[in-house]
Amino acid sequence: MPEQAKTNTRVSKEEFKAAEPGLRMELVNAQYDLQSADFPVVVLIMGDDRLGANRLLDRLHEWMDVRYIDTHVFPPATDEERLRPRFWRYWRELPPKGRIGIYFGAWALGTIADRINKDLSKRQFERRIEHIRRFEQDQIDDGALVLKYWIHLPPKEFARRMKKADRLTTAQVDDLDWEIYHHLNKAEPVSRRYLEATDTAKTPWTVVESTDPRYCQLTVARSLLASMQTRLAGKTPSIPTPKPGVFTGDDALSKVNLDAKLERNEYKRKLEKRQVQLNKLVGQAHQAGISTVLAFEGWDAAGKGGVIRRITGALAAAYYSVAPVAAPTDEEKAHHYLWRFWRRIPMPGKFVIFDRSWYGRVLVERVEGFAKPAEWQRAYDEINDFEQQLAEHGMLVLKFWMHIDPDEQLRRFKAREQTGYKKYKITDEDYRNRDKWDDYVAAVNEMVARTDTDAAPWHLIPANDKPYARVKVLDILCKALKKRLKS
Amino acid sequence: MPEQAKTNTRVSKEEFKAAEPGLRMELVNAQYDLQSADFPVVVLIMGDDRLGANRLLDRLHEWMDVRYIDTHVFPPATDEERLRPRFWRYWRELPPKGRIGIYFGAWALGTIADRINKDLSKRQFERRIEHIRRFEQDQIDDGALVLKYWIHLPPKEFARRMKKADRLTTAQVDDLDWEIYHHLNKAEPVSRRYLEATDTAKTPWTVVESTDPRYCQLTVARSLLASMQTRLAGKTPSIPTPKPGVFTGDDALSKVNLDAKLERNEYKRKLEKRQVQLNKLVGQAHQAGISTVLAFEGWDAAGKGGVIRRITGALAAAYYSVAPVAAPTDEEKAHHYLWRFWRRIPMPGKFVIFDRSWYGRVLVERVEGFAKPAEWQRAYDEINDFEQQLAEHGMLVLKFWMHIDPDEQLRRFKAREQTGYKKYKITDEDYRNRDKWDDYVAAVNEMVARTDTDAAPWHLIPANDKPYARVKVLDILCKALKKRLKS
Repeated sequence: MPEQAKTNTRVSKEEFKAAEPGLRMELVNAQYDLQSADFPVVVLIMGDDRLGANRLLDRLHEWMDVRYIDTHVFPPATDEERLRPRFWRYWRELPPKGRIGIYFGAWALGTIADRINKDLSKRQFERRIEHIRRFEQDQIDDGALVLKYWIHLPPKEFARRMKKADRLTTAQVDDLDWEIYHHLNKAEPVSRRYLEATDTAKTPWTVVESTDPRYCQLTVARSLLASMQTRLAGKTPSIPTPKPGVFTGDDALSKVNLDAKLERNEYKRKLEKRQVQLNKLVGQAHQAGISTVLAFEGWDAAGKGGVIRRITGALAAAYYSVAPVAAPTDEEKAHHYLWRFWRRIPMPGKFVIFDRSWYGRVLVERVEGFAKPAEWQRAYDEINDFEQQLAEHGMLVLKFWMHIDPDEQLRRFKAREQTGYKKYKITDEDYRNRDKWDDYVAAVNEMVARTDTDAAPWHLIPANDKPYARVKVLDILCKALKKRLKS
Repeated sequence: MPEQAKTNTRVSKEEFKAAEPGLRMELVNAQYDLQSADFPVVVLIMGDDRLGANRLLDRLHEWMDVRYIDTHVFPPATDEERLRPRFWRYWRELPPKGRIGIYFGAWALGTIADRINKDLSKRQFERRIEHIRRFEQDQIDDGALVLKYWIHLPPKEFARRMKKADRLTTAQVDDLDWEIYHHLNKAEPVSRRYLEATDTAKTPWTVVESTDPRYCQLTVARSLLASMQTRLAGKTPSIPTPKPGVFTGDDALSKVNLDAKLERNEYKRKLEKRQVQLNKLVGQAHQAGISTVLAFEGWDAAGKGGVIRRITGALAAAYYSVAPVAAPTDEEKAHHYLWRFWRRIPMPGKFVIFDRSWYGRVLVERVEGFAKPAEWQRAYDEINDFEQQLAEHGMLVLKFWMHIDPDEQLRRFKAREQTGYKKYKITDEDYRNRDKWDDYVAAVNEMVARTDTDAAPWHLIPANDKPYARVKVLDILCKALKKRLKS
């Protein structure tokens, strides 16, 4: 266990009584101020002392205004949770800005229990911990105040308590405590490893001894109060270390052969063949409970919509959905930018197409300055972890960049000006965006270099010739589905 | 079946081909315009021709921009859906303003299938239909464009199709169609009754014959387009009939005995006794999977918060949650006003306290003019149906109005000005609200008269004396829980 300072871990009844009214008022006032602040508070309560942690939780509820706390205890997962990637249930319960979420056991308890019960191998345990570090880091980076308290009862005290319970058969100690007690030795190294591995500079654990409940409760409440007051006083959290300056990696876009073409007749023949194949494969994936997540990015007028129509045209309407990514709602804005994609993660067997995606963070938000450099720079890692979780859950994740050159774009803009479809209206904005072509090229190249992973590969599609691009995407999609169905 | 006009129900291939491009463009353009409109579109597709309905759905997806359609097919319910009141799964999938939701079978199919399989008695079937009428009416009243298409294949045609399928064993006709075919006679009277009962002036069915798929598809698409265009052109839907003018019912508030008092010592004794009792009862309800939903309303400074603290103080933090009802988010504003309460309906065994509630519609929104008279007047029926559904699902629903007189309120305002709790800050607004006392009295009296039901009774609590009020609420709550646990 990380050492705690050797201080007095007892508080007298008098001291406790004297501290209570002032502490309570300050906590409630901090909650009041938090409502208009632009960050959420995430409190994780975990430890080896179930009883002490429960008492602490009750005490925090007593002292604070419960209307502005969301407490999450996580009973056995529902279908909707079990059938989605593991962290979905935690992401969906994250508090918006201005609110406090208390997580009782949560991802820490789940991971430690799974390892003790051998549901996780040593390697799986370490990988889970990696996701947890990432998950907690994501929240911190996004501005959340994350506080983690480990409620610790020294083994000697634990033994004393259980012996006493044995004599008195108190209502407070139940079977679960006995189980925890009997497995203390087995649990200790797992907890120790978990604590060490998740005790990072930005998301440290505060270990609080619970031999004396008054000490434990007062210590946590004071720590929580002090942390909130510091943040509310405008002390910004330490700025995340940005990635090393300019990206000088591969220029992937320049290698795309924009001359690729397909003859009209060949197009018709191949398109039909692929659509029939896709229809069959998606039906099989549906049966097998395999979800597919496609992300389409590309230049304006590169033909994303046309490709998507060729895919959906092959599928029964009941099997797929298309999610256009537009401006976030205010609920979405009040959360981490990945939250709105987590909430759309499909159930098994679904086929979901994102028309634009989470890559907006490192494309339009980067180029237009909507995201700060530190924000879009750390997004690569966040996105990789997000996609890896989907892939580990068995989903097929594919990403497409539809690539054209500026001349072709101009031709298409002019053609669109002739069409009766209102959605193809070309605005001054569209023309202005062309001035930023080089900035987007840099952003795309860095994005591809940093997020082209085995779990979720990028495909750069030459799209100057629409027929070629459509058949190419269908080709890739069919191949990937076939491979996934065989594995 | 409601008669359809005896028109030609065939469309030639040439006519179809000729109509397609223009229809497609107009549909997509209507979708484009819809995005900035202030109403959603709900399309229910149902019928006796599964195959024809599926083909229709695919065709609508082909013709329209699928990025702006949410199609819901409703596979078997998940835990989260099954464990909540029946209509939760439909409410949660309602489209926000500016989007189209297509519901395939949905509540119509579920109800008809349940009746055919005898999962619903005749009486239960009729009651379900009542909820459906209400549900569809709610959406219409809130401004949604609701369109219902019944895809009908005459029995003779059905027989012809199945005979042909028997010979050819086509891939399109499957076991389900055979099942439907074999039960046509049994299904017909159920479908007929369903159609008749849900064919209201505001939510009529359009029955479309599907002998010729081209006719069916063209007819529905044209109807959908025409309906959207009419609404987009600013033709407001017919105004719902308002309730008869002024409410002259009971003056329930005047009968509350505001002199009710409790001595300090009696208060302490009774409070503790009730809290112990409540703790036990809520534990039992949790075990039994019974949810409790409490709604607290009352004058400013009437002591809602204090009562809620006395309730939560008796409960383990893990068992309950308190939901403060503040301004809706923009996602909530884009839906029916009850949507934000539907989304918070708890899983079984939970204890949820609403600090202010859906009654805001007929209180502050009425008095301040935020809701139009037609809106708050129809809200009584909407709310009664909502609460009845919760009760039918086994939830305990109780509503409390905390009542004080204006003098007592003034005394409390003055006292609050002395406190260190920021949340009790008194503003000019609070004083201004006092001018509307009589309007609120009228609103409360009408609310109580119209929504005090067996399923969800109102309790008017004399709250000039805080101790009395707190013990009274705990009394009522304990009694109701005890009764519910016995039933």
